[in-house]
Amino acid sequence: MSGATSLLDAIAGVGTDRRGGYSRHGFDRAEAELREWFTAEATARGLDVHTDRNGNLWAWWGEPGPDAVVTGSHLDSVPGGGAFDGPLGVASALAAVDLLRAEGFTRSRPLAVAVFAEEEGGRFGVPCLGSRLLAGTLDTDTARTLRDTDGVTLAEAVRARGVAPEHLGPDPETLGRIGCFVELHVEQGRGLVDLGRPVGLASSILAHGRWRLSFSGEGNHAGATALADRRDPMLPAASLVLAARRAAASVPGARATVGRLVPTPGGTNVIPSTVDVWLDARASGDGETRHVVAEITEAAREAAEAEGCTVAVREESYTGTVTFDSALRDELAGVLGGAPALATGAGHDAGVLAHHVPTAMLFVRNPTGVSHAPAEHAEADDCEAGAAALARVLAHLAGVPC
Amino acid sequence: MSGATSLLDAIAGVGTDRRGGYSRHGFDRAEAELREWFTAEATARGLDVHTDRNGNLWAWWGEPGPDAVVTGSHLDSVPGGGAFDGPLGVASALAAVDLLRAEGFTRSRPLAVAVFAEEEGGRFGVPCLGSRLLAGTLDTDTARTLRDTDGVTLAEAVRARGVAPEHLGPDPETLGRIGCFVELHVEQGRGLVDLGRPVGLASSILAHGRWRLSFSGEGNHAGATALADRRDPMLPAASLVLAARRAAASVPGARATVGRLVPTPGGTNVIPSTVDVWLDARASGDGETRHVVAEITEAAREAAEAEGCTVAVREESYTGTVTFDSALRDELAGVLGGAPALATGAGHDAGVLAHHVPTAMLFVRNPTGVSHAPAEHAEADDCEAGAAALARVLAHLAGVPC
Repeated sequence: MSGATSLLDAIAGVGTDRRGGYSRHGFDRAEAELREWFTAEATARGLDVHTDRNGNLWAWWGEPGPDAVVTGSHLDSVPGGGAFDGPLGVASALAAVDLLRAEGFTRSRPLAVAVFAEEEGGRFGVPCLGSRLLAGTLDTDTARTLRDTDGVTLAEAVRARGVAPEHLGPDPETLGRIGCFVELHVEQGRGLVDLGRPVGLASSILAHGRWRLSFSGEGNHAGATALADRRDPMLPAASLVLAARRAAASVPGARATVGRLVPTPGGTNVIPSTVDVWLDARASGDGETRHVVAEITEAAREAAEAEGCTVAVREESYTGTVTFDSALRDELAGVLGGAPALATGAGHDAGVLAHHVPTAMLFVRNPTGVSHAPAEHAEADDCEAGAAALARVLAHLAGVPC
Repeated sequence: MSGATSLLDAIAGVGTDRRGGYSRHGFDRAEAELREWFTAEATARGLDVHTDRNGNLWAWWGEPGPDAVVTGSHLDSVPGGGAFDGPLGVASALAAVDLLRAEGFTRSRPLAVAVFAEEEGGRFGVPCLGSRLLAGTLDTDTARTLRDTDGVTLAEAVRARGVAPEHLGPDPETLGRIGCFVELHVEQGRGLVDLGRPVGLASSILAHGRWRLSFSGEGNHAGATALADRRDPMLPAASLVLAARRAAASVPGARATVGRLVPTPGGTNVIPSTVDVWLDARASGDGETRHVVAEITEAAREAAEAEGCTVAVREESYTGTVTFDSALRDELAGVLGGAPALATGAGHDAGVLAHHVPTAMLFVRNPTGVSHAPAEHAEADDCEAGAAALARVLAHLAGVPC
């Protein structure tokens, strides 16, 4: 038996990025190593581990479903991410199993710990890839042909990890086993810091999506090409970045971000022929989000035209506003002595599953408020408080129908 | 004996980039393969090939220097560059040797074909790296510690190709052998197209340099971080791109380009912690260039401050305006039946050497006008006209003092 932080300590050396933090991506070597670690830890606890058709891991305590209580999270990270986003939920699930075992807890329903694949979309671009495929909310043919930056397709990547690409897709049998789902996650903000509480519950997730804007112009020489002769796609790409901030600022609570921008070929003395920009946009509702994105893409089109360039816009993923099951949340708040409920702008596998089964999330206090960066943190005491809270929640849910 | 285009055909498969064009960079595998090709071709012509202390190749026809007539260019490319920028000058030099041999030409001065290393700076950031080191215009300690995007230093890269990094640096003995230098190059513009001429001469090169602007902010979650809490370095980086165009547009003939921009960590759902931007700026004189760069960096500083970010500016290279030796140019124009003289915005090893020895450049017509991109082109007839012109120039120069 070991606490959540000891479990995290054991994987602290896996997938470190020389630029700082961790880069662990779906089906890459680092994530595969973490999967092996999880399988060994779950097996050591007497859980029965198997991989579903979409590469998600399931560690069962008891016969698989139906009406199972499932907890879990993911092991992949954003590029250069922190140590807690994802792995804290997995480690806390294992620690909660230890706590329940130590208490002599007897299940009345099946229990499972799930590890979802490529939650961040850091390799193939679509966040919550594993849970979306499971739930059937992502076209399977599209998914198979997603490519990473090295040109490797998802089909090739899963095959390399022993998952048959032809079987990727909706998995009603696995989904049907889930009676309810609870994901524990490090908080991505300072809500719990401000409230002075170690653990909280999620109320909702902003509507959010990703759009890829590909600007095309004419590659040429940076020194020999007069300004008047240029069709430089970097110009409208830059205009897009500024338009995104303006558009988001005009809608209360909205966010728009460009964290990834790739000029091709990317030489200092070369006017790029194309620039790909990934826009992450979120707002309280579908209408607000669509409005923000429409303003940004319109500004991008105008800027492209002004430079003699073109722009192609592709929605790579979209998730409407998620409001977590309020009855379940109130019930768990009671179990946890009045844990506060917090809205978040961050997407989660729990947000995908919330459309299909009663779902809740536990947040653990993050003293920096920073996430998706090396400064992301949770104190050891708060991690153990989170695992203990999860254990109480699982004990409650696995004893009565939820 | 084979013409310039046949020689180019032989290397058409080396260093192709899957995004289009060629990526052949100093001391990488593709460039090493081209060096082997050059060495074999030069040796087959009875030239004596050796590598100087900075990794430049010299193929001597006759005893090395002094007062040698030297021609040549480079074999590396920008990322995703064309087939002609560099290799055309090398292939034409070999073809010119063939033409001279076929004519029974007898040297009165030593002749050499030079291949300069990392002319584009596509791998280590400093253009004309080999000729700058040779001429002593680049600090050697700085040069040794230049890194490519994989973190490999120039010292490590040259050692892997059999060049001792401790011997990099000024090479007055090699430089002292050069009596005059003539570089043939594909034109990077449509000057010769407009004039209806296959071959021209260079008159001058714009002052030009590269500056790296590193913006630092705070990495964080793209969904969970409110706009008011952000310090997103992508915002001032975008402002810099637009400011560069504005500043260049305010000075006649000036150019400013951002072809390379790298956010770290570069995740779609991640506010970057840093963004590095490489600025290429050029203008007719030092004062104009410095003015343009000062305007851009000032705008970058203001934009960084407005977003709570910082920016560090580093000059990575700078070359003042080059005016090629007018007496030599007039002499060669006479040899070539009144070949026209054209100014260019593109830097060359000839521009570095022009500060030390009488130097000239021949341009070959480029029907697209495009360079540093796959569309860069020269027709076979024009390539052969260029090689023939180079042969006549070499014959003229190697028969009389220049």
